Amino acid sequence: MKTIRHKIRTSSRDEMQNVTHLVEQALRQWGMRDGFVNIFVPHTTAGVTINENADPDVVHDMLKALDVAAPHEQDFYRHNEGNSAAHVKSSMVGCSVIIPVSEGRMMLGVWQGIYFCEFDGPRSREMIVSCGE
Amino acid sequence: MKTIRHKIRTSSRDEMQNVTHLVEQALRQWGMRDGFVNIFVPHTTAGVTINENADPDVVHDMLKALDVAAPHEQDFYRHNEGNSAAHVKSSMVGCSVIIPVSEGRMMLGVWQGIYFCEFDGPRSREMIVSCGE
Amino acid sequence: MKTIRHKIRTSSRDEMQNVTHLVEQALRQWGMRDGFVNIFVPHTTAGVTINENADPDVVHDMLKALDVAAPHEQDFYRHNEGNSAAHVKSSMVGCSVIIPVSEGRMMLGVWQGIYFCEFDGPRSREMIVSCGE
Repeated sequence: MKTIRHKIRTSSRDEMQNVTHLVEQALRQWGMRDGFVNIFVPHTTAGVTINENADPDVVHDMLKALDVAAPHEQDFYRHNEGNSAAHVKSSMVGCSVIIPVSEGRMMLGVWQGIYFCEFDGPRSREMIVSCGE
Repeated sequence: MKTIRHKIRTSSRDEMQNVTHLVEQALRQWGMRDGFVNIFVPHTTAGVTINENADPDVVHDMLKALDVAAPHEQDFYRHNEGNSAAHVKSSMVGCSVIIPVSEGRMMLGVWQGIYFCEFDGPRSREMIVSCGE
Repeated sequence: MKTIRHKIRTSSRDEMQNVTHLVEQALRQWGMRDGFVNIFVPHTTAGVTINENADPDVVHDMLKALDVAAPHEQDFYRHNEGNSAAHVKSSMVGCSVIIPVSEGRMMLGVWQGIYFCEFDGPRSREMIVSCGE
């Protein structure tokens, strides 16, 4: 297995950062042709997802909509760090994604980009990119 | 890696289409015995999930419940295609799933089926089924 | 591929059970050094997620927040088993997760633990842990 760790710096509480180029760079560096690439986020208040890479309004709308699905304030929250919603969003979106690679390219759709999702920033984060063999 | 692309035709805005047989067909065609199979959806307003294959009411309830979690209309939506909720649902459900295969069969539970999830149909879609070597 | 099935006994309707040690045990038993480990839950009203392993209040808050995102009671639910919300939560959280392994250890973050998620307990459940080759 080959693995690269990337540092990610986020700048707001909720943020989706397009990291597709970092994964493409790893594939080129490895000379990987065919197989699967995994993106793993080793944090519990962040995640990784695949979504639209074109209109930044989609990211705006998604972050606000996730805030509705998992509100930042709830009377029943007990966790004293005040970031319970971020934990829920992390599990809703997930922290690990696998993408098939063919002839050196991820089989992403035209509109798909890979996003590092920050739900409790700003922070210094990490992302682990790995491929088989 | 072996890969098969399937065309999926959806017929309503929100829809879950059972595609388990298409994945089983790919395994048979490859003669795959043991390993992992990946189902990847190259769209940003669709997804793939595993859920109950028996009572169609579950699909009905899930689609309505996702509509509550990520409402179709919100004052804060900016994306001018009017499908922001579909993008959120896609990231909530995910666009990539991996299933272990043993002796030629996916290790699905008795009640589990694989569903292509349409959140912005009707459309012509694609689904990519892949397995390692 | 190597596979181990674990029995999981849950004791309430909604529950997150830390199963990290069961996955670590499988890796030790296999002598696995590098690659990917998959945790697959063969149920449609349960799931698997990675989240905070330290403060039990996070689990409490997450389960309550998922109950807000996918309420247990809705007028539109048709499924007569009364567990439609559990099906939705299962698809939100997912039933399959993949984790990179390096030098015999999962590349989890310091605060990350693997949780079996029960959404329709108490029940007897299963979890399938697998790794390549």
